[in-house]
Amino acid sequence: MSKQLPRVPSKERSQVVFGATLRSFREARALTQEALAEKADLHTNYVSSVERGERNLSLHNIVRLAYGLEMDVSALLRPLDKR
Amino acid sequence: MSKQLPRVPSKERSQVVFGATLRSFREARALTQEALAEKADLHTNYVSSVERGERNLSLHNIVRLAYGLEMDVSALLRPLDKR
Repeated sequence: MSKQLPRVPSKERSQVVFGATLRSFREARALTQEALAEKADLHTNYVSSVERGERNLSLHNIVRLAYGLEMDVSALLRPLDKR
Repeated sequence: MSKQLPRVPSKERSQVVFGATLRSFREARALTQEALAEKADLHTNYVSSVERGERNLSLHNIVRLAYGLEMDVSALLRPLDKR
């Protein structure tokens, strides 16, 4: 029997995991959504919708948010790693 | 004097770094672009343009490519970490 490959999470699932991770790191830094948006050069409403898992955001915006949080891009994606 | 924050890399720079990383991991697995595209459920031309640094790809497609390479999403982003 061949080894079963892990199933790719749905787009929605990835968005929700990323959004929850973003919120958690932002709150750990005691930053408001407004403050993070300003640091990342994004709109507050956009940051809010990302945190709610509503955005399939782009590579560049992922990088911007990581820099806004002053953390490594890879650390922000770690909760999406295979189990 | 306040600590200087690292500058966010340009969109183009992030795309080029990601594309080169993707190509390097794909080749290390001896996968063709066609084979990776099939595993990631993406088009070959799309994978090719990502590797050339032409795509500001979405979170979900980043996840698909990582699963196609059977690697952690975070490892695929590590070259974009702050220096």
